[in-house]
Amino acid sequence: MKKLAVAGSLAFDAIETPMGKTDKIIGGASPYIALAASYFKVDAGIISVVGGDFPDEYFDILHSKNVNTDGVIVEKKGKTMFWAGKYNKDMNQRTTLTTELNVFANFNPEVPQRYQDADVLMLGNITPSIQKAIIEKMSRRPKLIIMDTMNYWMNNTPDELDETISMVDVLTINDEEARQLSGEFVLPTAAKKILDRGLRYLIIKKGDNGALLFSKDGKMFFAPALPLENVCDPTGAGDSFAGGFSGYIAAKGKTDFETVKSAVVAGSIMGSFCCERFGTENLQLLTDEMVKKRAKEFEELTKFRF
Amino acid sequence: MKKLAVAGSLAFDAIETPMGKTDKIIGGASPYIALAASYFKVDAGIISVVGGDFPDEYFDILHSKNVNTDGVIVEKKGKTMFWAGKYNKDMNQRTTLTTELNVFANFNPEVPQRYQDADVLMLGNITPSIQKAIIEKMSRRPKLIIMDTMNYWMNNTPDELDETISMVDVLTINDEEARQLSGEFVLPTAAKKILDRGLRYLIIKKGDNGALLFSKDGKMFFAPALPLENVCDPTGAGDSFAGGFSGYIAAKGKTDFETVKSAVVAGSIMGSFCCERFGTENLQLLTDEMVKKRAKEFEELTKFRF
Repeated sequence: MKKLAVAGSLAFDAIETPMGKTDKIIGGASPYIALAASYFKVDAGIISVVGGDFPDEYFDILHSKNVNTDGVIVEKKGKTMFWAGKYNKDMNQRTTLTTELNVFANFNPEVPQRYQDADVLMLGNITPSIQKAIIEKMSRRPKLIIMDTMNYWMNNTPDELDETISMVDVLTINDEEARQLSGEFVLPTAAKKILDRGLRYLIIKKGDNGALLFSKDGKMFFAPALPLENVCDPTGAGDSFAGGFSGYIAAKGKTDFETVKSAVVAGSIMGSFCCERFGTENLQLLTDEMVKKRAKEFEELTKFRF
Repeated sequence: MKKLAVAGSLAFDAIETPMGKTDKIIGGASPYIALAASYFKVDAGIISVVGGDFPDEYFDILHSKNVNTDGVIVEKKGKTMFWAGKYNKDMNQRTTLTTELNVFANFNPEVPQRYQDADVLMLGNITPSIQKAIIEKMSRRPKLIIMDTMNYWMNNTPDELDETISMVDVLTINDEEARQLSGEFVLPTAAKKILDRGLRYLIIKKGDNGALLFSKDGKMFFAPALPLENVCDPTGAGDSFAGGFSGYIAAKGKTDFETVKSAVVAGSIMGSFCCERFGTENLQLLTDEMVKKRAKEFEELTKFRF
């Protein structure tokens, strides 16, 4: 089985949307990434840190989907990261109510031996210097290193960000971030500039307007987002995208453009499922039938004969 | 040859974008619609009004593409409508500098006999009561009546708008307008509500994020916009979309979902060409080779195997 190392936060989330409200549930980026990836039958292992308050049942959720947690440091005396957020009526904006980094503030990652030779490394959106440290702890360079990041690091740690970007193969950011990082408004032009940093692929996420994939040799692909009637909770949609994307590539063991295109669709599928229930709930319930049906919907959405 | 009646403004435009500036050129909605439609070898006729100052050379531009202007009233003593606009650096916003309606202010449309039995009627974005008057002047109901409109009419003449919508088959609006018209934020839900007014199809245009097509029997299609590197002037892109859409349908003589899907792509193709040069220039230069190449690009943009 192909190995996927997943670095990212592991936290308690409390979410309020017009559709309801959760107590503290399993959250952070890494459960979304790893659960979405696990659908593709890869050996996914999380690299993260939690406090002594992180419940066994949450580990059980991950283990039940064959997600490995050997790389999750448990700081017995510390508290797990906590995030609370509330969405507006249309769920197109959210307000962060609380962010308590807790043990995540001093996260010093360890990569278990089992994942030091992972086929694919998926770096969730965390401090670029930690992403870099994880890359350096691999015993063998993965076939593909994917890095998610955001404007916060562009504003606050641009040098570390640039250095880490220069070490990876795929970068995933949103359209505004692509414009900020490149200083170019037109996305294909922005993409070229960013790819010139040594990336093989760039993914520009446009939320419910889909995602664009650019390759360093000038190819382009667009995956729409499926217009959903019932959005329950958008939290983790981007991380689910990253999970579907990285899981699909790890499972296929290939990194050519055709495979990466399909991986973008795999990511979009996982993102769409994520939104339909609170937290990681829908990712825990996925069946082959559900995924095949949705893949067909994505295909039908854009298929035409001219 | 199938007949397409095109109602819309015919004007002088003066456009300024970061790529350059035009003097007064042929503008208004109807030349974009008719020129884009004419590519599909339909007998397109414009229903509009100009003043005595409208130059013969502009009629020649239309006639050279076999666009009929028998339905263009020439008010010898009046002045042609004039619009001037300026785009910001990123061309995602524009400021209207001047709108002089002139003869268009009292437009009393005439439908020449030749187009009273048109196969398709494309109503560009003008006063709903004029759109209605044109429908009533047809001797035979067209196979398909397409209506473009905008938030201005939702705010200012909602009753006339509602009445005209109830008489047409296809409505084209943007995403914010769909939300305003339905009172629903989620687009598939908004679409259902709007389709319930008796439409067969609804097209929700999302600018450079593509266009969604919804049918009254619950089908959905998405056509992306092609990410363009060289946008010269976005003026008329929506009208070119309407022209490609209506021209394609008129030429095919069919209104089933598969045909209408392809027509949305035809519209997107025409919109993409429109943006690459000033005014209607690129629409005047279209060759089969250009269109086939672009259609292929659209197909490649979203094709995948999962």
